[in-house]
Amino acid sequence: MTVSAENQAQQDIEERLTAEVVASFANTPDPRLKELLESLTRHLHSFIREVRLTEREWARAIEFLTAAGHLTDDERQEFILLSDVLGASMQTIAVNNEARGDATEATVFGPFFVEESPLVGNGGDIAAGAPGVPCWVEGSVRDTDGNPIAGARIEAWEADEDGFYDVQYADDRVSGRGHLFSEPDGTFAFWGVTPTPYPIPDDGPVGTLLEATRRSPMRAAHLHFMVTANGFRTLVTHIFVEGDPQLEIGDSVFGVKESLVKRFAEQPPGTPAPDGRALACLPWTRTRFDVVLAPQNPR
Amino acid sequence: MTVSAENQAQQDIEERLTAEVVASFANTPDPRLKELLESLTRHLHSFIREVRLTEREWARAIEFLTAAGHLTDDERQEFILLSDVLGASMQTIAVNNEARGDATEATVFGPFFVEESPLVGNGGDIAAGAPGVPCWVEGSVRDTDGNPIAGARIEAWEADEDGFYDVQYADDRVSGRGHLFSEPDGTFAFWGVTPTPYPIPDDGPVGTLLEATRRSPMRAAHLHFMVTANGFRTLVTHIFVEGDPQLEIGDSVFGVKESLVKRFAEQPPGTPAPDGRALACLPWTRTRFDVVLAPQNPR
Repeated sequence: MTVSAENQAQQDIEERLTAEVVASFANTPDPRLKELLESLTRHLHSFIREVRLTEREWARAIEFLTAAGHLTDDERQEFILLSDVLGASMQTIAVNNEARGDATEATVFGPFFVEESPLVGNGGDIAAGAPGVPCWVEGSVRDTDGNPIAGARIEAWEADEDGFYDVQYADDRVSGRGHLFSEPDGTFAFWGVTPTPYPIPDDGPVGTLLEATRRSPMRAAHLHFMVTANGFRTLVTHIFVEGDPQLEIGDSVFGVKESLVKRFAEQPPGTPAPDGRALACLPWTRTRFDVVLAPQNPR
Repeated sequence: MTVSAENQAQQDIEERLTAEVVASFANTPDPRLKELLESLTRHLHSFIREVRLTEREWARAIEFLTAAGHLTDDERQEFILLSDVLGASMQTIAVNNEARGDATEATVFGPFFVEESPLVGNGGDIAAGAPGVPCWVEGSVRDTDGNPIAGARIEAWEADEDGFYDVQYADDRVSGRGHLFSEPDGTFAFWGVTPTPYPIPDDGPVGTLLEATRRSPMRAAHLHFMVTANGFRTLVTHIFVEGDPQLEIGDSVFGVKESLVKRFAEQPPGTPAPDGRALACLPWTRTRFDVVLAPQNPR
């Protein structure tokens, strides 16, 4: 055979193999599982063929997954971290929260949400003693036509200035988390702490991957939100801090969207707080987040 | 925005995210690692976008990988099984053993090869007491121009008729494996047992996947070969048994290639053995495998 005939024969072998594996799922009773496995097979085989994966590289991939599996337990989830740093988590969020008018964009949920956070009410303090520069957060909740949404449930949670969420401490503290409801005119406001960057766990195989690719394990500073209201799509998102150098370096899990970067205006010590809170000579910041919820069943 | 403008905006968001993740690998010092991760990212994101992966399905995938990781230890490798049943192992072998003239096709190596198998010599018996119907295997080793290759090392290994390799037994038996060298005219011959189908381990998440997709965990009956000779590409392959019903049902790891299916001719009891072996009234089979090795550096 000529070289080009050999190339064609080789291509036929590879394509026939993919077709054979896809066909093996033909009798899957659940049509969605069938669709998922057929597509996964096609993309996985395309990857192997495109890069001409060596047998040694294949073995290294098996080792990587094995190490990730052995590190994973109830406290540590290395496969989620892997999905995060490959942008797979964020892409999944993107396809499940399709752009709808000017509805606020979604981002990663993260592992630190806790059910039944304290009700703090409007003007309340979710920090509850978490160390950090106080931050006044105010905003509104509206629909895509601009109408205010009353009684929307706003969950907010965040790390303290040392980069830890309350659940990462060995004691039973509840701090840096809380919920409140929007007023009849859609507005809300609360006190928290000004967000700071912190690293994702990087002492496992995912950390080795970040190191080998010279990527930063740091997350851009952020404040988590989950906003729910009847008849609207639940919004899971963050707001980020304008000027945070990590925004330039890159968020390790690709959670940043430009529309979610907000000004956290520094207030000189002595500036009176909006609600008259006694801040003595401490500096503080203030930010604004106007939320737009997409309808639940838009079409 | 109109629906089609929203669709375009959504597509832009998803494509931008993929581009952002690909760009995050820009500073990777090792160019091959960079290439692998960029390609993996593109294919992984394409999969998620194509199937519109739900957040629940994403979570199920994380659980699956976690369970596979927890089952994997020195004796059991669930990630290799996963790679096998998705045809990823076989596709990796395909791209690393490109078609070359009429060179014999490669197939999966499997987990049961052992270094330093017994030297049995031509006409010897690799079965060494393994239960099964005796099988006379004869053949030759040649290059792609048809010239005999003398002194090629031929390793052969196989399961017994109960579907187990020697290393799967708790005792220290060595049976169903051995090696020999081709004669000056390229020929070889040995006794083994006639191969029978057996299942891959199916009591873990991969077994659950096979069950959910109504796929058989059985491997088609086969006899493993590894043939090495100086100046030639090492051949790792099997031969399969013509008429084995599992060939129709499908080999669970996609190792079958038509060119590797051989006739195992049943010999009526009393038929004299080619080497005069005393088989009394036992039935036996005979098969022929003519090996063609590809040159090591063909271009």
